[in-house]
Amino acid sequence: MIKEKLEPDVHTQRENRGIQKNDIESQSSLDSGLSHFGFGVPANVVIVRYGELALKSSGIRNWYEKILIKNIVAMLDSRGIPYSHIRREWGRIFIESTDARAAEAAADVFGIVSTSPALMAEPSLEKAARMCASLAQDLIQEGESFAIRARRSGNHPFSSADVGKTCGDAVWSALEKEGKHPRVNLSSPDREIFVEMRQKMAYIYLETFKGVGGLPLGTQGSMVVLISGGLDSPVAAWLMMKRGVMIIPVYCHNSPYAENAARERAFECIRQLQKWAPGYQFTTYEIPHGPNLQSFIDLCNRKNTCLLCKRMMYREAYEVMKKEGASGIITGSSLGQVASQTAANMHAEIYQLSIPLYHPLISFDKTEIMDIARKIGTYDISNRPAGGCAAVPERPEIGANYDLIVLEEQKMNIETMVFSALKNTKVLKL
Amino acid sequence: MIKEKLEPDVHTQRENRGIQKNDIESQSSLDSGLSHFGFGVPANVVIVRYGELALKSSGIRNWYEKILIKNIVAMLDSRGIPYSHIRREWGRIFIESTDARAAEAAADVFGIVSTSPALMAEPSLEKAARMCASLAQDLIQEGESFAIRARRSGNHPFSSADVGKTCGDAVWSALEKEGKHPRVNLSSPDREIFVEMRQKMAYIYLETFKGVGGLPLGTQGSMVVLISGGLDSPVAAWLMMKRGVMIIPVYCHNSPYAENAARERAFECIRQLQKWAPGYQFTTYEIPHGPNLQSFIDLCNRKNTCLLCKRMMYREAYEVMKKEGASGIITGSSLGQVASQTAANMHAEIYQLSIPLYHPLISFDKTEIMDIARKIGTYDISNRPAGGCAAVPERPEIGANYDLIVLEEQKMNIETMVFSALKNTKVLKL
Repeated sequence: MIKEKLEPDVHTQRENRGIQKNDIESQSSLDSGLSHFGFGVPANVVIVRYGELALKSSGIRNWYEKILIKNIVAMLDSRGIPYSHIRREWGRIFIESTDARAAEAAADVFGIVSTSPALMAEPSLEKAARMCASLAQDLIQEGESFAIRARRSGNHPFSSADVGKTCGDAVWSALEKEGKHPRVNLSSPDREIFVEMRQKMAYIYLETFKGVGGLPLGTQGSMVVLISGGLDSPVAAWLMMKRGVMIIPVYCHNSPYAENAARERAFECIRQLQKWAPGYQFTTYEIPHGPNLQSFIDLCNRKNTCLLCKRMMYREAYEVMKKEGASGIITGSSLGQVASQTAANMHAEIYQLSIPLYHPLISFDKTEIMDIARKIGTYDISNRPAGGCAAVPERPEIGANYDLIVLEEQKMNIETMVFSALKNTKVLKL
Repeated sequence: MIKEKLEPDVHTQRENRGIQKNDIESQSSLDSGLSHFGFGVPANVVIVRYGELALKSSGIRNWYEKILIKNIVAMLDSRGIPYSHIRREWGRIFIESTDARAAEAAADVFGIVSTSPALMAEPSLEKAARMCASLAQDLIQEGESFAIRARRSGNHPFSSADVGKTCGDAVWSALEKEGKHPRVNLSSPDREIFVEMRQKMAYIYLETFKGVGGLPLGTQGSMVVLISGGLDSPVAAWLMMKRGVMIIPVYCHNSPYAENAARERAFECIRQLQKWAPGYQFTTYEIPHGPNLQSFIDLCNRKNTCLLCKRMMYREAYEVMKKEGASGIITGSSLGQVASQTAANMHAEIYQLSIPLYHPLISFDKTEIMDIARKIGTYDISNRPAGGCAAVPERPEIGANYDLIVLEEQKMNIETMVFSALKNTKVLKL
């Protein structure tokens, strides 16, 4: 394979809002109502860019890219988007599809930095220039300024500057002939045409969708996630999925201290997360947690109920983690979000336990968590009324003494409680 | 105190880039070169807004607000910005200062959502209208459209709609008189004038700076942070500071496996973080880590050096944590960023240890980390050449067997090694 040198380029940015697409606002050259190449010339390929993968060693990169392509295929299939061919070419994946939804769907695949619906042409100056001119005639209106953004990789008898100049001249002449008084403006043009000249093909495109980023799902092993159905835990799960982690949802059912609506809400959140993982099937564990709460209320200081509850959930999740061969446990904890989420309490929750916990939201503000929840489609689900947990005391501990918590636990047979909860656990495919 | 009902408002957003201010681009009504109220009428007060605090119970909120004001005072003092008075008033803090830098400085204080340099007036329709008209004459040019954004809280004989109408009429008349052909445009005006009518005072302002958010520094206890001087760990530290945590930096010095430049770079990062915590003095621990590395290299399988090193750092940091009465240990780990940062390795790093670790960057992409590093001023420091760690093996473990790691450690007297490192630790005030 020829090692290609990529020259820098500039992209228009269009915010991709994930699976909920109805609120997308285009910030691209196509604002005037044209959709993709929907003006007679349909896009026939999607350029897919993935950033961080390029930094890996060739063995790991090769493996990551294969998983990435598998995940793209699953995403296109899950949305019923047809494509004729997907290929990999040094630093890029190309999806051959004329479906206008393909670029947005690919942008929702973890590991992808950006996508562009494009037109393919032979990698010659003449072909690229002709195509730019033809596009420009439809795209650029009287009085609008334009710029050609050219980049080049591979071996050609011309430079990227030559590509820019030849295509720019062709656009200028075509507009001039139509009496549109063309203007070139390289710093802030009204319209941009991007030309990417590669070894085997040239690609011409007008807009770029921002991808979700991260690493391909399935490349970073699996972790258990404690899903409550509230705003935080689904966002924590999604962030770790974004980083390549396959999740194993665990729902601790607090009945009779929680309503069934809470369970339904949690399951709905898991189903929504599942949409971000087409081609994978989560294994969900539903653990009966009510009897544990009953013991804490009966036997321990009431203000410690929530701390004891958390410690028990971690122990139960740890058993699931070991059974599933997973590597950690994800929580939705965010420091200081509620009065009882103090650093002292979080220390007490894990004191003398040896469990690999991950709190991806630990430094997040509530507003940041809400923004992500909206983007990933769990916000409205988590906001459904589901009743609170009736076991929460009026005044929970906020500055826990962790030695005391250990003494509290000695009043019960913790191991038997964990064993009993797991024995009555349901394994679900939601 | 009168319970005030706040009506919704709209703010112009201006991205605040933290302590490095030279790259700020204004997106406010003041783009035409005017600075704050620098056109003859200087702002005399800064409106300070803090979001999440408002959700806390009154006792906690009161305590948080006091710390917030203390932190604002320290930030103003650290930048030599004079002010005459700072006061608190139901959901807002007001800094009386005519220094144009005061609003930006306050926006850099953790816990603050936004700030606006403003003009104070008596809370009457007439005064507010007159002030709006006077501002508009300087601000609004011929042909530009404008909007008044009014909100009101407290008891007044008029509504927020009345405020908007009266001020709007006054602006319109003043511009009309000057022959500027005024136009009102509520959806996307060229210029906006904000009027906040409160019980004791009216505030008129033109722009809003985005604050760093989070919770007031010092409200969430303290944590140890392992600072290497690379890109990640200072960002991890800053994010936890943003969330209210006072940090205790720990630098493990790998000499003779690391150059002194690495140490200098780490210290420089700590000094930069210190700028975000005026009024507080970090206590930095420098732990000699080279002898530990020597033992791992001499006695254990070479591929495990980095895992053993991490486990030892966590143990040492844990001792510092206990000594300082802190609640956790912050790391810069980001899943999958390098080949050895696998979930399996991270599990092995903590296996059988019971240490409260926080990895705020666990789900972050490298590009996201770099963006924050630039914003907080550590990027250029971390990018200085400092040489790598010479103890890193050619092929580090990527899928650690954690039982094996424990066996490796049994070849050494880990407790003595921790004890010896701590005995030779330096405590610094950088």
